[in-house]
Amino acid sequence: MHGLGNDFMVIDQISHPVELSAEQIRSLGDRHRGVGFDQLLIIAPPTRPDADFSYRIFNADGSEVEHCGNGARCFARYVLMRGLAARSPIRVQTRNRLLELHTDDNARVSVDMGEPDFAPASLPFVADTRQPGYQLNVESYGTVDFQAVSMGNPHIVLTVADANTAPVGSLGPELYSHAAFPQGVNVGFMQIVDRDTIRLRVFERGAGETEACGTGACAAVACGIQAGLLNTRVRAVLTGGDLTIEWAGAGQPVIMTGPATTVFEGSVLI
Amino acid sequence: MHGLGNDFMVIDQISHPVELSAEQIRSLGDRHRGVGFDQLLIIAPPTRPDADFSYRIFNADGSEVEHCGNGARCFARYVLMRGLAARSPIRVQTRNRLLELHTDDNARVSVDMGEPDFAPASLPFVADTRQPGYQLNVESYGTVDFQAVSMGNPHIVLTVADANTAPVGSLGPELYSHAAFPQGVNVGFMQIVDRDTIRLRVFERGAGETEACGTGACAAVACGIQAGLLNTRVRAVLTGGDLTIEWAGAGQPVIMTGPATTVFEGSVLI
Repeated sequence: MHGLGNDFMVIDQISHPVELSAEQIRSLGDRHRGVGFDQLLIIAPPTRPDADFSYRIFNADGSEVEHCGNGARCFARYVLMRGLAARSPIRVQTRNRLLELHTDDNARVSVDMGEPDFAPASLPFVADTRQPGYQLNVESYGTVDFQAVSMGNPHIVLTVADANTAPVGSLGPELYSHAAFPQGVNVGFMQIVDRDTIRLRVFERGAGETEACGTGACAAVACGIQAGLLNTRVRAVLTGGDLTIEWAGAGQPVIMTGPATTVFEGSVLI
Repeated sequence: MHGLGNDFMVIDQISHPVELSAEQIRSLGDRHRGVGFDQLLIIAPPTRPDADFSYRIFNADGSEVEHCGNGARCFARYVLMRGLAARSPIRVQTRNRLLELHTDDNARVSVDMGEPDFAPASLPFVADTRQPGYQLNVESYGTVDFQAVSMGNPHIVLTVADANTAPVGSLGPELYSHAAFPQGVNVGFMQIVDRDTIRLRVFERGAGETEACGTGACAAVACGIQAGLLNTRVRAVLTGGDLTIEWAGAGQPVIMTGPATTVFEGSVLI
């Protein structure tokens, strides 16, 4: 399955009990000698009574991921399509949260992505105090203005006149590796199209420019709303497709809605 | 399936008649939004009486390929595994040839790769006459010694003391784009381990260094045999795995033997 090009191998561990080692996950994730995926999603029974399912997500290198918006959408589509769940909403337990997932008639899925945290320490970002906007000097560009927010992972957001011509490939890596972000940072280039629409490109930490960074879209829209530039429900046009991002303001979670697509079904001997 | 990491989606058009457009092939070949493959292999009935099957091979960009040693091995394993053929040898019609494929007890498959052609015009290579060896001046390396041969596609082969430290990534592209090769060239870096073994790395035209270039292994061994450095049956140790290459000399075809591996079976809605 894939969500805007972020692709998953999905295993139903409820019907087919299977334990995979990190080495087996790496082997399955190989795009030439295995099935090939960005992430492996394993669906299992819940361990708490208020959840319908639990799931775990692993990168192709075998490491485990906490939460993934694209993966949550694929999970919801899978359990409905396979008849494991009868109807939306679906309550699923991730490693550290309980998510409630909603699907609509257009087969789009809404995911609670948690609250944005604008405190610099949450990224971490080395800044004296929380402010509406920040500046940094970058060697080859001079002064850069941006906002900073954590969506569980660190983001900065630059407002640009034209996302298509923004220097994502050059300024992105310079900011990503700037000393002010000791753990690196995801760098979003947001063009305000109108109060209900942004065009967004994201340079992702450790991955370079990607087609559809879900947390990056949440971060950009939350920053745009906080700056008074956007309404509370925004269409984010990413390179890989569209997401709808909603945020009612401080103390509320960001809701991300987008597609999930089944590509093929298969069986593999492990 | 894959042959030393060169991966294929295989469709049995005999049991499941299906016609795919170039756009559908590109869509299936997408590694994030489709099944993902280097090449698509379509198995069909033959149109000539001396063949058991025909097949066609398409790149992930939808263009058709004449012949592919790794694909031929996967084809043979597939038709035996699926019971479409009862025993080896299997006679298969490609776009311009009839191939006879043999499998052994270790599930390795032998493919007739055709005769090597040492005439410079066959590559094409701009040289006055056919010679045992050639020299070219390359800006950053000075004089480079090599042999030249066509295996249906153009190859030059450099003999090096240590393939692992050979300048594949720098000298490869310089020779590939040299004016003496108007259609480009595949560049092999061959280390003679002993008379029965080579270590080989190949810079492939249009693809860069690859893990297991089958025609590159045939070209290197044919050159090594012609130069009197190798016996007629040689193990070629490539980065992605081993191939056995046999050549009895002028007028005889090169025989390539190697593995073919099934990864998974699946169904996709087109």
